[in-house]
Order: sequence, then structure tokens, then C-alpha cells
Amino acid sequence: MPSIESLADLGVREAAERIRRGEVSSAALTEACLARVTALEPQILAWAHLDREGALAAARERDVEARAARLRGPLHGVPVGIKDIFDVAGMPTTAGARAFAHTWPARDSAAVARLRAAGAVILGKTHTTQFAFRDPAPTHNPWDVAHTPGGSSSGSAAAVATRMVPCAIGSQTVGSILRPAAFCGVVGLKGPHGLVPLEGVVPLAWSLDHAGPFARSVDDAALVLSVMADMALEPARVEAPRLAIGRQLFDRADADLRRHLEGVVERLAQAGARVTELTLPPPFADIHAAGQVVLEVEAATYHQPAFAKHAADYGPGMRDMLQIGLARPATEYVTANRARLAFRRAMIPLLEAHDALLSPTAPGPAPAGLGWTGDASLCAPWSSAGVPSISLPTGLADSGLPLALQLVQGPSGLPRLLGVAAWCERVLGFAERPGD
Amino acid sequence: MPSIESLADLGVREAAERIRRGEVSSAALTEACLARVTALEPQILAWAHLDREGALAAARERDVEARAARLRGPLHGVPVGIKDIFDVAGMPTTAGARAFAHTWPARDSAAVARLRAAGAVILGKTHTTQFAFRDPAPTHNPWDVAHTPGGSSSGSAAAVATRMVPCAIGSQTVGSILRPAAFCGVVGLKGPHGLVPLEGVVPLAWSLDHAGPFARSVDDAALVLSVMADMALEPARVEAPRLAIGRQLFDRADADLRRHLEGVVERLAQAGARVTELTLPPPFADIHAAGQVVLEVEAATYHQPAFAKHAADYGPGMRDMLQIGLARPATEYVTANRARLAFRRAMIPLLEAHDALLSPTAPGPAPAGLGWTGDASLCAPWSSAGVPSISLPTGLADSGLPLALQLVQGPSGLPRLLGVAAWCERVLGFAERPGD
Repeated sequence: MPSIESLADLGVREAAERIRRGEVSSAALTEACLARVTALEPQILAWAHLDREGALAAARERDVEARAARLRGPLHGVPVGIKDIFDVAGMPTTAGARAFAHTWPARDSAAVARLRAAGAVILGKTHTTQFAFRDPAPTHNPWDVAHTPGGSSSGSAAAVATRMVPCAIGSQTVGSILRPAAFCGVVGLKGPHGLVPLEGVVPLAWSLDHAGPFARSVDDAALVLSVMADMALEPARVEAPRLAIGRQLFDRADADLRRHLEGVVERLAQAGARVTELTLPPPFADIHAAGQVVLEVEAATYHQPAFAKHAADYGPGMRDMLQIGLARPATEYVTANRARLAFRRAMIPLLEAHDALLSPTAPGPAPAGLGWTGDASLCAPWSSAGVPSISLPTGLADSGLPLALQLVQGPSGLPRLLGVAAWCERVLGFAERPGD
Repeated sequence: MPSIESLADLGVREAAERIRRGEVSSAALTEACLARVTALEPQILAWAHLDREGALAAARERDVEARAARLRGPLHGVPVGIKDIFDVAGMPTTAGARAFAHTWPARDSAAVARLRAAGAVILGKTHTTQFAFRDPAPTHNPWDVAHTPGGSSSGSAAAVATRMVPCAIGSQTVGSILRPAAFCGVVGLKGPHGLVPLEGVVPLAWSLDHAGPFARSVDDAALVLSVMADMALEPARVEAPRLAIGRQLFDRADADLRRHLEGVVERLAQAGARVTELTLPPPFADIHAAGQVVLEVEAATYHQPAFAKHAADYGPGMRDMLQIGLARPATEYVTANRARLAFRRAMIPLLEAHDALLSPTAPGPAPAGLGWTGDASLCAPWSSAGVPSISLPTGLADSGLPLALQLVQGPSGLPRLLGVAAWCERVLGFAERPGD
């Protein structure tokens, strides 16, 4: 019987497998996770709402079912954390905002309903930046509490990194899954735009919003995403992957990270990867500005009624952004959206010509302080293009903070992307964890 | 050997078949079409640009190839007319506008290139309303020159009705293929949005623009669309079609047309059609306003640079519309586009539950005068939803002007839609033609 400590170390697939085989109970696993929360939450502040009783009751039900071989699905008995913009029946949805934005939904969001139907045990809601934009969450980075965990899915990333939960779900409109995953040393994954339904999720920008998982391995992230997407999703078998490197993307990284990632690429090449340089197509020049306009306008469209009543209650980042979005003429939006789609069209054949595009996930490790969630510019193009991307940890900076790489593929290449990521994960063998 | 007069009567498929078999030469067919143009163009004004020499030279080349059994494709040797917003290499594109908008493209638009690759002989460019919006073309209705032929594809509809050409292509953003087809007593067809590429076509509104054919039978229209779409497209075999009738749509028709179409529906039912009533879903209430906002803003985005220089040269309809579009805030556009997509989502399952939705194509026959191209409100929802629709003539009003019905299906149901249309065409047996 594994100790409580090592139970919380179990990954998603292994936990589910042991519950299935009757070697571990969901209740014991949930207790182990809750024990981690008890020990670490005061320093980390990952949770906006914790449902200890509800989670334990659900876990005990899953155990009864497991003993009767009535398994609900691939996540039977596995605790998960839910970013606090996804509705969970019977828990508040705050979206990281003040009272004006709270709802008490009676229904699960579509993605949560799928997790629950697959047997997951909902531990609670994790902290988000306000409305999943940039006004920060209270969460601290598990590797150094003086640093941001990144955002907007701050609590989900920190909860998975601290082993409070084997997986959690988040959302990404610019860099809100992959960047906090990178800063917290875990795997963050999003599929192509539209893969996971977003009913019951507070939107930031409909054309850009993606839902996806945090986990501690590529395989676990793939499993959780397959449940969220309600589709079979196995990493493709990949050997000697053809990796594309974009010099323009590496140039955005700080010198230490660039040096580190060049070493990483060398290790991958020695293990058999074929590495080529890729020049980003001309529409890349416009993608950051275009994505920003689309975000501002769509966020302004959604928030307009509430903002008219509660402008003063919005955080300064949201407030400034919504004011800009409300003032934009429609022709600017149409132009920006067309530039965004032109970038997507130009990128897809380039991405599909390789097994993955490799870049830094962020320009450096997590910045100091909690006021800024960090630079999302290396994730933004792939959110704007709506193509799948994944971040995995590659090592630690001298400061002890995690470093990460990002892999990107075309919208129909998700299994291939996961296969490349799993291959890189095996070669790199990252096994560090934050101290308690 | 058929006379010149009856050569011009040949439909697309029959003409191509006879050319293939060596029974008719493309040159003779083209001459027969040009003879119709010579006789009728002074009253009809269907053509913005006619390429007599080029067309005859191409026809003679096609004849040489046909004699050598080197057939280019299913339109080998068949004359076509091209709405003057599609680029044709070596002919001006005026888009029905003044000199400021003229271009002399060196390349065919994508759809024209496909027609040409399939062996079509390009007779020339047909008149369009200005920029395919509502400022009228000079074209007259072939059934009564005191009436509009409808628009915006005015010349294409009139040219096919007068047998100046067996088929022509047009575009529809609101009702610009199906309405002129109805007013001119021919078949007008558009596929789902995105089916035919629009490279090399002057846009009106990217989210709504469709390209499609005019012909004198459903089968011919299907053949031309299959070439434009570069895909196999056979009308499905349909017997006893399940037709849905929308009372809200019939209520838009004038009393005479309603009575006529009720008789048509009765004839179809007697021939075996199963007819049920369908209530349009709640998002129908917003679709006209939503489509209009999307059109205004996208048109304003495209025309903004030219309009800044040449506002005075624009027609009054375009000018007013562009001014409204330029002034709209981006949030209005996003709201409208979401309403449009909500209507599409709500309609698709309803459409797919039947073989076709049947309605009037327009609320009545072609209005008197050339100043107004007529009410497009019965075509607009299907352009906004991006679903395939087809208009076919059903009879003549007491005034002698044609009447028509429209059939609509979901985006993946084009062969089924064509099958229903061909079935209705057989049952109704419309065989009238405008007098010379």
C-alpha cells in the first residue's frame, strides 16, 4: 500500500489503473490530495473553492462502483481541479472577479460534465486571473513563492505542480495554459480551436478561447484532453521526429533560456531528431496585433452589459482592455480577424511539413512578483491560429525555476504532436519537483 | 443539323454531349449564341463586355481538340457568361462601377480558371449591380423590359433566360443569384458557403459571398457548379421527397404568388411529396438584421481605402451602406455575426430532418422599373446561414412574368437538394420562355 505522500504522486493514468485494479481506493487518493492541499495551500493559494466533503463522498461512490466493476470511464476515481471560469454544478463560478460576476450554476459546463461522466472526482475550483485576462490571481509559484505561477490558469498549474491533484483543467486565449505550465514545471496542452466545447465557460474571446488540461506527463495530458474532447486520442508512434526551429521565436528568449534550449535541441538531435530551421511566413508580422484586437473586441462584446454597470469593479487590466475594445470600429476587427486567419492559412502547411515546430514556451522562467503573469507572446500565435500546442518542462534555471519548450502542429495533427512531445519527454527525462 | 436558333436552345449537358459526339461544333454553338446576343442585346443589355473574336477562336480550338478526342472536361466547347465581378484574364473587371474600380487582370479568378480548364468558352462579362450590391445594372427583364431582371447578377440571369448563353455564373451575398433567376425564369443555384473559391472575385462581404451558376435546368446548374467546386456532384435519386413548408416564409409572398405556390405544393403532393409545416427557430427573428450588419461592415472594410478617395463615384446605395458600415462599432459586428451563426446552428438540424425546405424565392414576380432589383428577404437567411439553396421556375403570373420556388438544405446536403429540385422540375414541367 503506497503512502499518502506517494499516492499524491501518482499520475492520472496510473491512478486510474490502480483504482480499476482495486489496488488503490479513490477515497485514499482524494485524501492524499487533500492532505497536500492542507499542507501547501497557505503558501500557494491555488484554490478559489475547495469541496472536501463533496469530493470525498464522490470518491467513496466511485470506490463502491469500482468494487462492483462499474467503471464510469478512463478517469474513474481520479481527482481533478477546475479553473474557476468553468461552471461546476453546486460550486460558485467567480472567474476571479468580485461579487458582481459570481454565479452559482446548477449545471456543469460541457467539459466538466465529460470529466465527471468519465469518473473524475471534482476537488474544487482553482484560482484564475480576473476573467482569464491579466489582473493576477493570488496564487504563488510552487518553485519560488516570490514568483508568479503565470496565468491565467494560475491555480490549475500550481495545484498540479504541487501534487495537490494529478490533473486540472484550464483555458487559453493567449498563453493561459502553456505559459503557467512552463512556469510551474508541468505539462500544459491545448488542442485545435473548437475541439473542446466551451458551453458553461466564461468566455474571454470566442474566436481564441481553448480549454485544455494540466498534468505531469504528456500521456496524462493526452488522456484528460481525450475525455474533454470526447474522442479517442493516442499519441502517434514517433521516432526520429522532424523538428522545425523558428529562429524568430528563439530570438524572443532571454540569453540563458536560449542557451539552455539550444542544449535541449542538441540532446534531441543526438537522440535522433532531425532538426531544420523554419522561417515564419510574412503574416507572422501582424499576428500579435491582430490577435490582440480580436481579443479586445470579443471581450468587450461579452462584457459590455456588465461593464456598463460595474466598470469600477473590474481590475485595471480588464478595464483598460475593455475600454479599448468598446471603442474599436468594426472595420478594425474585420481586418484583424482576416490577418489572423491569413496567418493560420499560411502556417498550416508549414507545420504539417514537420512533426512539430519547437520553440520556447515563454521568453524566460517565471518573473519575480505576483503582479505580472509574464510574457505570452510565444504562445499567442498558436492561440490566434487555433492550432494545437503543448508545453513540457526541460530543466531548471540556475534560480531553480523551471524552463520549458513548446511544440506546435497543424489542427489535424494532434496525435502526431503528442507523439513528438512524448518522445521529447522520454529523451529529456525531466523529474524535478518543487520542494514543499 | 439543328438550326442556329435551336442550337442556342441547347442546355449545357446536351451541348457538351453533342460536341463530344461531333454532332455539333463549339464554333456553331458559339455563333448561335452570338446571333442571339446580336438580336437581343439592344433591348436587354446583359453584357458589360463581349469577346466575340476571342470566344470564336477558343471555340474553334475546342473543335480541333474535340475532333482529336482531346476533351478538356465536362464543359468542352460550351459558351458561358461571367458576372463582371469575376476576373477573366484579358477582359476588364468593372464590378458595375465607374472608372475608378476597373482592373484589367492578367489572371482568371479561381472559378473561371476551373470553367476554362473544363473546356468552357468564355463569351464575355455580364452586367452586375454596382459592386454586387443594389445600385442597379442597366439590364432589362427578358419577359418584360419594363421590369427589373433582379440583381445583383442581372446580366447572367437575363443572358441565360434569353438563350444568349446556356449558362452563366454569378454571386450571391444576400439574394443575388436566386432572386434574378426567379425573376428571369431560370434555375439559380448556390452551394454551401466556401464551396467555390472566391480568389479573383471582387468581394461584397466575405462571410456571406457565394459563387454559383445560372442555367435552364437543375441538372445543368449542378454540372456547372460541380466544375466551379471541382468536385463530383450528382443530384441524389429522390422519390416522394419530404418537403418542409415554413408558414413564416409563405406569409412574405403577395397573395397571387401565395395562391400559385399553394397550387404548386398541391401538385407536388399529388405527385408523391410528403409535405409538413416547419416553424423557423427563434434565431430567425434576428437573421435579417444580423446579416445586414455583417454585410455593411465587411463591405466597408474592403472598400474603405477606395471609398476614402472616390466616395462621390459610388452609387447612392453603396455610399449609404458603406457610411453605415464604417461607423459601426466592432461589438455590433461581433454580436451580429454570433446571431448569424446561432441561426445557422439552429437551422441545420431542421433542414437535415427534411429533404428540402420549400418557400417562395421572392415575395412576388419582378417589380416594375429598373431602379430597384427587388426584395431579397426570402433568399437572405440562406446566404447568411451559408447553406445551399436553389431557385426554379414554377409558372407565369397573369402579367406574364415568371414565378419561382426556392429549396434549401443543410451544408452537407447538396446532392439531396439537387435531387429534390430535379424531382420538382420534372413534376412541374415549366417550359415557357420569354418572347424575343
